[in-house]
Amino acid sequence: MAVYTDVSDGELTAFVAQYGIGAVISCKGIAEGVENSNFLIQTERESFILTIYEKRVAREDLPYFLGLMEHLAQTGFPCPLPVRGTDGEALRELCDKPAAIVTFLPGLSVRRIHPHHCAGLGEAMAHMHLAGESFAMHRPNNLSVAGWRPLYDATAARAHEVKPGLAELLGEELDFLEREWPGDLPGGVIHADLFPDNVFFRNDSLSGFIDFYFACNDAFAYEVAICLNAWCFEADGGFNATKARRMLAAYRRVRPFSDRELEMLPLLARGSALRFLLTRLYDLLNHPPGAFAQPKDPLEYESKLRFHQGVARPGAYGLD
Amino acid sequence: MAVYTDVSDGELTAFVAQYGIGAVISCKGIAEGVENSNFLIQTERESFILTIYEKRVAREDLPYFLGLMEHLAQTGFPCPLPVRGTDGEALRELCDKPAAIVTFLPGLSVRRIHPHHCAGLGEAMAHMHLAGESFAMHRPNNLSVAGWRPLYDATAARAHEVKPGLAELLGEELDFLEREWPGDLPGGVIHADLFPDNVFFRNDSLSGFIDFYFACNDAFAYEVAICLNAWCFEADGGFNATKARRMLAAYRRVRPFSDRELEMLPLLARGSALRFLLTRLYDLLNHPPGAFAQPKDPLEYESKLRFHQGVARPGAYGLD
Repeated sequence: MAVYTDVSDGELTAFVAQYGIGAVISCKGIAEGVENSNFLIQTERESFILTIYEKRVAREDLPYFLGLMEHLAQTGFPCPLPVRGTDGEALRELCDKPAAIVTFLPGLSVRRIHPHHCAGLGEAMAHMHLAGESFAMHRPNNLSVAGWRPLYDATAARAHEVKPGLAELLGEELDFLEREWPGDLPGGVIHADLFPDNVFFRNDSLSGFIDFYFACNDAFAYEVAICLNAWCFEADGGFNATKARRMLAAYRRVRPFSDRELEMLPLLARGSALRFLLTRLYDLLNHPPGAFAQPKDPLEYESKLRFHQGVARPGAYGLD
Repeated sequence: MAVYTDVSDGELTAFVAQYGIGAVISCKGIAEGVENSNFLIQTERESFILTIYEKRVAREDLPYFLGLMEHLAQTGFPCPLPVRGTDGEALRELCDKPAAIVTFLPGLSVRRIHPHHCAGLGEAMAHMHLAGESFAMHRPNNLSVAGWRPLYDATAARAHEVKPGLAELLGEELDFLEREWPGDLPGGVIHADLFPDNVFFRNDSLSGFIDFYFACNDAFAYEVAICLNAWCFEADGGFNATKARRMLAAYRRVRPFSDRELEMLPLLARGSALRFLLTRLYDLLNHPPGAFAQPKDPLEYESKLRFHQGVARPGAYGLD
């Protein structure tokens, strides 16, 4: 939960006047998202989300994120559409920080995940992957394998504070993944953060994706692997093969998934687990006391990593 | 900023189905309010606020607060209207806590207060005082003079950690106020927390009051005194007599303000300053590390208290 920037009524009114969306009649800081400050604003006409980008989002990446959302929305993919001001610009400044207004996407994120939610996710993810193929901009995934070593170096010395032996696990896994990581998988635009918080449903039908601020170009199958981790484990740590099967089957009905991609899934799932383990560990070790956002538990991803280390073939996920 | 209770999509959908307001299409935790968890929910038809009452609000007081809002809204006073379920009940339970849905009140709270805002506040406050006269329920103000001694006892020993000499100031002031506090002023329902956060404006016109969870029966002039403290001091600590004059003049055009009430204002302003000084001091000394809400500065109210101690007659406020 987070609102890091306090916007006065006067600043807000002047800001919104730059768009042709009517006068603001209410503005509520939203207690979600850890990276940016988000406000639900209502004008005389409709609802919008105002985002003020805080320091963890690089300003030079914003044209990619906003351009991607615009591109996807224009192809009919359900996601927020950045609103351009009367000057044609979608990205401007508020309180001396980058800021943008996007359309409001209705829907609720699901807490109790059922297999049909995973099917909906798989289908929409594949549609997004296809829709992104005509997007011209490119942004490397700085949280893929090349980005893990710096995170390891920044956390290894204190990892034992979180769990004895954790640094050794991280170091060995990183050595392995740096050696084995595939460079030949089909790829394009991925969302890269498709956790349940960022996927909305209405009446059990997927209504869209939000929060594209980790989007980048990477292997499509890596996104599937992130979603296996984020959607197919139960609270007790057990892997739910039914959910994984429904997700992948729905994905494949939209976009072919090659044997090579399938074969690489266990390795990609290990990489995805290591990525979230490292970033959560970093955030926990560097969590300022009294900060609003509660750090997420890195050890949830240690458990997932160990699970995937024991998977030799995708058949162990129930996938074939 | 606060959302203390996490509501799942399933719990929310089932809860809202008890009202005839359509299906929920979105729900955002709101980063405001320190006492309760608030959510802005949108149904197919319109927006509402869902509040889950956390432990600082006594369950037995909720019928008073909700009944008062309903009473005021029905007299035409602009405030949220509690929505009754199809069973006729406005107060029910969600996540094992008391919860209610109220209508959405448009407007923005003002950051930079101008004298005309104070005039709008004075007028609306007087209308609310009159509208409350036909409200049958009664709730004593447990944060008036009788409630200050327990707060003093709970904070005096550590007050010096916040400022040397603070305990002595508090003790002497409390002795004085307990001796001099008037019992004969006209009273009725007061909001008791009319800070700028709880007062909405649209296009410089007051659009309503929110957050009635300190409302109680007390002297009307005490509410005016709270507002003198909350609205008429500048950020540098200076008292703005123009704002005070505009507020009181607008109030008096709606509800007569007797000479006795006017004469008592300096004393009531001292009491109001002591009340917020004590509660803020208590909250600061008992602030759990890592809690979401940042404690407010008690010393802002020490400075206001010292100012009022130097005021012998209301003329010093520019009031007559």
